[in-house]
Amino acid sequence: MGGVTFRLAVIGSGFMGNLHAKNAFFHPVVELVAVQDIEFERAERLASVARTTAVKDVTEILEDESVDGVIIASSTDTHVEYLTRAVAAGKAVYCEKPIALNYSDAERAVDEINGSSAPVMIGFNRRFDPSHLALKAAIDEGRVGKVEIIQLTSRGPQPPTIEYARVSGGQMRDQTVHFFDLLRWLTGDEPVEIYAMGAALIVSAITDLGDVDTSIVTLRMASGALCQIDCSRRTNYGYDERVEVFGSDGLAESRRQNFRSFSLYQGASIVGDGLHYGWANRLEESYYGALDAFVACGRGLSAPSPSIVDGLRAQFLAEKARESLEHHCPIRF
Amino acid sequence: MGGVTFRLAVIGSGFMGNLHAKNAFFHPVVELVAVQDIEFERAERLASVARTTAVKDVTEILEDESVDGVIIASSTDTHVEYLTRAVAAGKAVYCEKPIALNYSDAERAVDEINGSSAPVMIGFNRRFDPSHLALKAAIDEGRVGKVEIIQLTSRGPQPPTIEYARVSGGQMRDQTVHFFDLLRWLTGDEPVEIYAMGAALIVSAITDLGDVDTSIVTLRMASGALCQIDCSRRTNYGYDERVEVFGSDGLAESRRQNFRSFSLYQGASIVGDGLHYGWANRLEESYYGALDAFVACGRGLSAPSPSIVDGLRAQFLAEKARESLEHHCPIRF
Amino acid sequence: MGGVTFRLAVIGSGFMGNLHAKNAFFHPVVELVAVQDIEFERAERLASVARTTAVKDVTEILEDESVDGVIIASSTDTHVEYLTRAVAAGKAVYCEKPIALNYSDAERAVDEINGSSAPVMIGFNRRFDPSHLALKAAIDEGRVGKVEIIQLTSRGPQPPTIEYARVSGGQMRDQTVHFFDLLRWLTGDEPVEIYAMGAALIVSAITDLGDVDTSIVTLRMASGALCQIDCSRRTNYGYDERVEVFGSDGLAESRRQNFRSFSLYQGASIVGDGLHYGWANRLEESYYGALDAFVACGRGLSAPSPSIVDGLRAQFLAEKARESLEHHCPIRF
Amino acid sequence: MGGVTFRLAVIGSGFMGNLHAKNAFFHPVVELVAVQDIEFERAERLASVARTTAVKDVTEILEDESVDGVIIASSTDTHVEYLTRAVAAGKAVYCEKPIALNYSDAERAVDEINGSSAPVMIGFNRRFDPSHLALKAAIDEGRVGKVEIIQLTSRGPQPPTIEYARVSGGQMRDQTVHFFDLLRWLTGDEPVEIYAMGAALIVSAITDLGDVDTSIVTLRMASGALCQIDCSRRTNYGYDERVEVFGSDGLAESRRQNFRSFSLYQGASIVGDGLHYGWANRLEESYYGALDAFVACGRGLSAPSPSIVDGLRAQFLAEKARESLEHHCPIRF
Repeated sequence: MGGVTFRLAVIGSGFMGNLHAKNAFFHPVVELVAVQDIEFERAERLASVARTTAVKDVTEILEDESVDGVIIASSTDTHVEYLTRAVAAGKAVYCEKPIALNYSDAERAVDEINGSSAPVMIGFNRRFDPSHLALKAAIDEGRVGKVEIIQLTSRGPQPPTIEYARVSGGQMRDQTVHFFDLLRWLTGDEPVEIYAMGAALIVSAITDLGDVDTSIVTLRMASGALCQIDCSRRTNYGYDERVEVFGSDGLAESRRQNFRSFSLYQGASIVGDGLHYGWANRLEESYYGALDAFVACGRGLSAPSPSIVDGLRAQFLAEKARESLEHHCPIRF
Repeated sequence: MGGVTFRLAVIGSGFMGNLHAKNAFFHPVVELVAVQDIEFERAERLASVARTTAVKDVTEILEDESVDGVIIASSTDTHVEYLTRAVAAGKAVYCEKPIALNYSDAERAVDEINGSSAPVMIGFNRRFDPSHLALKAAIDEGRVGKVEIIQLTSRGPQPPTIEYARVSGGQMRDQTVHFFDLLRWLTGDEPVEIYAMGAALIVSAITDLGDVDTSIVTLRMASGALCQIDCSRRTNYGYDERVEVFGSDGLAESRRQNFRSFSLYQGASIVGDGLHYGWANRLEESYYGALDAFVACGRGLSAPSPSIVDGLRAQFLAEKARESLEHHCPIRF
Repeated sequence: MGGVTFRLAVIGSGFMGNLHAKNAFFHPVVELVAVQDIEFERAERLASVARTTAVKDVTEILEDESVDGVIIASSTDTHVEYLTRAVAAGKAVYCEKPIALNYSDAERAVDEINGSSAPVMIGFNRRFDPSHLALKAAIDEGRVGKVEIIQLTSRGPQPPTIEYARVSGGQMRDQTVHFFDLLRWLTGDEPVEIYAMGAALIVSAITDLGDVDTSIVTLRMASGALCQIDCSRRTNYGYDERVEVFGSDGLAESRRQNFRSFSLYQGASIVGDGLHYGWANRLEESYYGALDAFVACGRGLSAPSPSIVDGLRAQFLAEKARESLEHHCPIRF
Repeated sequence: MGGVTFRLAVIGSGFMGNLHAKNAFFHPVVELVAVQDIEFERAERLASVARTTAVKDVTEILEDESVDGVIIASSTDTHVEYLTRAVAAGKAVYCEKPIALNYSDAERAVDEINGSSAPVMIGFNRRFDPSHLALKAAIDEGRVGKVEIIQLTSRGPQPPTIEYARVSGGQMRDQTVHFFDLLRWLTGDEPVEIYAMGAALIVSAITDLGDVDTSIVTLRMASGALCQIDCSRRTNYGYDERVEVFGSDGLAESRRQNFRSFSLYQGASIVGDGLHYGWANRLEESYYGALDAFVACGRGLSAPSPSIVDGLRAQFLAEKARESLEHHCPIRF
């Protein structure tokens, strides 16, 4: 895995594959050696834009000894297979979340690769958002003192189609799970109790899937701190994410972000630009940081974070939140 | 109760009595005819500042037929007695919250004055805060569409003394209760389920009183909307209050407020002025509005709001929140 | 002038007289002993609200030895007479700006009272605005380093009537003059060169008066710092005042201020509350501070600031700005 | 010039050449066919990153008939030569500002290419900044009514070295010139009078070059509107750019921009993230837009804006500002 360049292949050439390939292109130490998709035309299209080789079969990538690392950005049902095979092949792995749709499958995958030396990183990219990183640094430096209340908000932008809702695993596993990870990472603390209240207020048919589209999850942390996460599947004002950490010595906030900086003063109002249109715009920068971190851990310069255990732990919280929703009671663990 | 002026007396000359007397002074239609306190010197001090008469015995005020209305700002344990006597005497009554420390006492008081024509208003002054009023107007005008998530925050500023904590009735009855009222008023909706999670993170001795100083309360409304209220008994950054209402068509917010408008740009930071030092500074203006509303209902021009039933309802929610805290489970009603 | 109270009379019972009387009422050490107006009914109306005595003739106030200080809030053409008489009578004097409409009259007045021990303060109340005070403190503490650029903005709210424009002395003497004073006070520095560019863009008839309603004044300070002041006689978005000081170590700003803290997020925009409706709302608090400062200097506890010399100096700059406007050239002094 | 791709070459492989090449790389219709530099190693380094061909001699590019357009990002003293030769060769040209260091050379170049059909665009990229574009749209849609005051600020970030100051042409030609262009573009109006006040407050040795590093320029527009531009060569708080347009119906502002969205509330202060570190970060997005516009005009889909005449006009204003600085008087034209 030595050498000055890090030879990277991207598995899956959909939206996320394209995003990763584009970032990889100009990364100073990355050489993008292949992009793959089972729909070969998608791989070809991406390869042509990214001046690289298209492949159809993942095996080709995994058997290529010159490949240092892979980014798994294929559909979730293929994650476990590609992940375990890539680890077996000794590749550094960056796997989009979730590890598996099913928690027990995820657990099994983690068990299977346990003991392997290949670094595995899970794609909770929010850990690399510059403002969330500043929040984390403030907490770690003791700026807010002892953490007492954490408030996380994630809303929108578009209501899911029923088709998407059906395969997404539900709001807890698909949307809230990012914030379970953020919560653990920001605080360095573990939840011990969870209560989820939710409803299908946007797309009522989601109820039939046993799912919700609007929810408030309340958690108690081992340290005693209290946490609240509210999620909605749509807004009509762009993608709304904010995180606030209140402690004994102050309050730190990773604020909502405007997409532009224009204001109009008129009459009794000031009209300013609203939020980013979607999460991809809001979080664009975080993907560069995530790639950087992956390259560093792929080259043995740092431990993977979020690790696969972090990925599993966030999925665990999603499972418990679903249980709480279903049984209308708090769950301790 | 006719005439161009509204003849007002203030019962209790402590912090709140002073505040009300000062506002009354320059109110265009109010004549402040007396201020009372059982510690007569306090009444005299206030009377001298406010150019009015000091009295020691409430009876003197209640038997004076020229008095149109009274503001009850004495200690909570006297509220029920003065309230019922003032109503019996036909006075318009503005009573500081809560009606009584004990919910059943409050209920009995409400029963007792039931049927009387005297208007009774409860001192949930936040209903008259200009920014909260703008929020209410936005909801009523349909600007946010169907309400789906409500988030209320109240923190600080000073940790309570153990003595105060002992007589305060606890965080739910003393602090959160204001936001139970705001929630009902803003949404025009009623909670049907409540879950409270709390802890004594600031003053651990509060645990011995069966109380908490940090809490998150989650509510489900009859309409299906979800609500979250987080309260802390202290900050080290002033008094922090914000309310956010998320709906199908937008998000409306009554923001945190800075005490001044100074900024310093230096290096990689901008240092701006923080929040108001305490709730009295933050909410100063709301007391003018509350007085205005009281005078209007005392003169028969409008119905009292918050009414005594609103006061009772908010106390009911505080009781249920306490039950939830104690039993660690959601409560439906 | 001893004793615990400061016995104050207000000369002139118009808008400014009312404002000062109201503030005086609850000031802890002030006793408002009389309000005067040559239209006696105005004095009576104010006296009834402020629980004090109405007088018609200023002489009555000046001959009353128990009066410690006077606030001159009558029409500008009476300032010089009342000011010199009040000083002669040994009263502390707070005189609304300007000293006189005519610069040479102002100069003569200053000469006349020169040597008197009575403290005289001029009503440039902006020096007491909390945000401007914070800006001054930042400069004095060296937070911005060496001052290099100062930017002052004052706009609105209402276009003047032609009648008002005729007697106002013109934009430089009436509006910009406040910012000449702020500039000198903030920097502790004196202008050495001035250039004014202006036009009647709002009320074209103002041109016939030799006046402007929109202007940019550029100044060079003795220290070398550059300054820009832009003034407009109206906005359609409330009263707009901001001051920004740029230096070698940072930028400090006394920001525009919103009248409320409400926001609505919708589509691609965030609509927030606009600025205060008028200068009186925006600057309300500064009048309390000005009164406080006057009482302190009236009791010999501090030197008057802004002093009458400050008043004269600001008028001097207004004269030079007018000259520059007329001759279309920079003026050095 | 037909075909689906726009074949582009970049002349000069320094900081700006790299920036343009990187943007060109992923532009959907651009094919980056060559990068040039007289220091061939610089071209090679860039070519290797951008997967394209390095050339040393501009002639190679200009004689290649398959090249549709060129971006001139070489040193200013070569602009006129490359510009006129590229136009003669029928290429679409994007030329970094200024056209020439010397105004008369710029004028001659414009005369020389006059009549040619090749589209020429000047690199005033700020016209493509999303927030400035929003400001322009607001003005054009009449949102601010008749424009009356325009205020432009550009400060920092780093003080120039004496070497740079010597070859830069001076603050007016190098820094303020961008804002002369913005002013003309935003208002669609032309200045008729200019007054510049400046000093060397940062690097005193700049005085010996007859230059300034801190300045305020005041302009009167043909429409009567007044404008103020303040420029400083350094801040210690990042790059500070804001534009404000005040009109009869409102105020529109392209605000200062923070580099992140983190806040810390502590004591009486809120510490938020400051401005972008430098102009390249602040204006990053504008270069994408400028490239897009260039491709569109290179393909005949739109007229070049800023055109070469715009470039000349901005340089004219810079010359007049220098004259005003030197003679200490306003200049009309």
